[in-house]
Amino acid sequence: MTTPTKEDGCLLIIGGDEQRQCRERILARFVELAGGPGHPDPNVVLLTSASQEPEEMARPYQEALARLGVTRCDIVHAANREQANDPAVAERIAHADGILITGGDQKRLMATIGGTAVDQALHEALKRRCACVAGTSAGASAMAGHMLASGSAEYAPAKGAATLGAGLGFVQHIVIDQHFSQRHRINRLLSLIAQNPYLYGLGIDEDTALVVERGVGIEVIGDGGVTLVDGRAMITNAADIGEGEQAELIGVQLHVLPAGSGYLLPGAQASTRLKHIEREAPAPIQAFISNLTKRNPLS
Amino acid sequence: MTTPTKEDGCLLIIGGDEQRQCRERILARFVELAGGPGHPDPNVVLLTSASQEPEEMARPYQEALARLGVTRCDIVHAANREQANDPAVAERIAHADGILITGGDQKRLMATIGGTAVDQALHEALKRRCACVAGTSAGASAMAGHMLASGSAEYAPAKGAATLGAGLGFVQHIVIDQHFSQRHRINRLLSLIAQNPYLYGLGIDEDTALVVERGVGIEVIGDGGVTLVDGRAMITNAADIGEGEQAELIGVQLHVLPAGSGYLLPGAQASTRLKHIEREAPAPIQAFISNLTKRNPLS
Repeated sequence: MTTPTKEDGCLLIIGGDEQRQCRERILARFVELAGGPGHPDPNVVLLTSASQEPEEMARPYQEALARLGVTRCDIVHAANREQANDPAVAERIAHADGILITGGDQKRLMATIGGTAVDQALHEALKRRCACVAGTSAGASAMAGHMLASGSAEYAPAKGAATLGAGLGFVQHIVIDQHFSQRHRINRLLSLIAQNPYLYGLGIDEDTALVVERGVGIEVIGDGGVTLVDGRAMITNAADIGEGEQAELIGVQLHVLPAGSGYLLPGAQASTRLKHIEREAPAPIQAFISNLTKRNPLS
Repeated sequence: MTTPTKEDGCLLIIGGDEQRQCRERILARFVELAGGPGHPDPNVVLLTSASQEPEEMARPYQEALARLGVTRCDIVHAANREQANDPAVAERIAHADGILITGGDQKRLMATIGGTAVDQALHEALKRRCACVAGTSAGASAMAGHMLASGSAEYAPAKGAATLGAGLGFVQHIVIDQHFSQRHRINRLLSLIAQNPYLYGLGIDEDTALVVERGVGIEVIGDGGVTLVDGRAMITNAADIGEGEQAELIGVQLHVLPAGSGYLLPGAQASTRLKHIEREAPAPIQAFISNLTKRNPLS
């Protein structure tokens, strides 16, 4: 069981938690991941730029974090790109132990912070300062380089049913959807995968989160599960059909990991961050997990 | 393009059609399949034993079939096993060109006709008389040997979430679910597959049907799609977890075929029953389609 070093930032990708049954359990893990061993009171920032109501969005998190013993919880609300490029604002993020990107609209979030000093500070916190970067709902989708921006496909995967935008890029070649089972979003995710087979699909249920320890492995926590979709070997007619038409998909690999599930990369040592996770990823999901946990460099 | 011979009965598996937008299109195909070339007015039987309200269940079909030019449409309602063993009742089925098993409760249906003279007559009509046997909703689920009997799993595949019963067995090693996308039943189907990896899963949307020409191929018609789930190479913990717990599934093959899609078995010749279907099934679904179209003998 190894203890993380200063190089090992980690991610907590949360599927939204309207019901909030597991919020405190998930937030307790966030506090642990942000604090690290012997550091029980991390310096936490709530980044609320996905929402136009930052105080309302932040309040339940502030209250829950206070109950969990966090004494330093700062709200950062860059409301426009000028604010997101303010060095003083970015500084607060770069020096946080844990940053939670709250929900709202991921398009608003990225239109506000994408490519700014705040964006850069998030990457520095993750990759240089061993911080935990968490995102919930819109904040979760924005963690991918290719961000699921909008769209819906309730009953069938269809061409053009969902759109991509440029996300934060903590993980690459992956598209993240949230509120996944509760909002029946598998067809929305498949719609994107059909047109973008080199993206892996990651769907996270409400009250559920995925811990991603870079270079080590993953763990599912909370109440629901995580769905992985791998269309790399898929046969599809998506390129040939018209906008809005239902797509044919043959040979999609589907994996469902419930809470408690988790895997290490082949050869990785068990870590204090991934609790009770000691099994190596089996062959069908090795490439997915290897990609998900890749230590993408600071760009 | 070959014309079916007297050995080639066919199946029409309909996903239920509450909205009835495509009912007439699907029923028109049923009439064609039942009649065959040069036989435009087939002898049709509606088998209503899945319901306790046979007349109400049958009426919209009678009306639609009449609009389609069918002059001989007979309702057979075996309400108990004694009636289902009545040779006169079975005779009406054995001599039909097309039999449509209507909806209701597949457990009621099988408790009433399973293993009776009516059951035997359905197999004879299909396998000896080149009839088309169609089933919608409960009638669709009952067409498999292992019948999805009941259960629900809205948000995650879970152990014991769905139960099996003994079905009619026109197709073997397959479990059929209906109203599939509309009732968000993928997790119910995955729950069964997790515990029964040697069954293929077949989910059919509303207003949608699958034409199965034994020994030849398949075609999806209607408004929605058909979802195929293949867990033969899956890794799962279903045997190790408790009743009601969420299952882990790794390496499930998922295929989505929209209306208009269809495939021939490798080496099979295009047939007049499968319209415009000329492509061979690609490798990832060959075994599934080969099993689905198998000419199971009269037992």
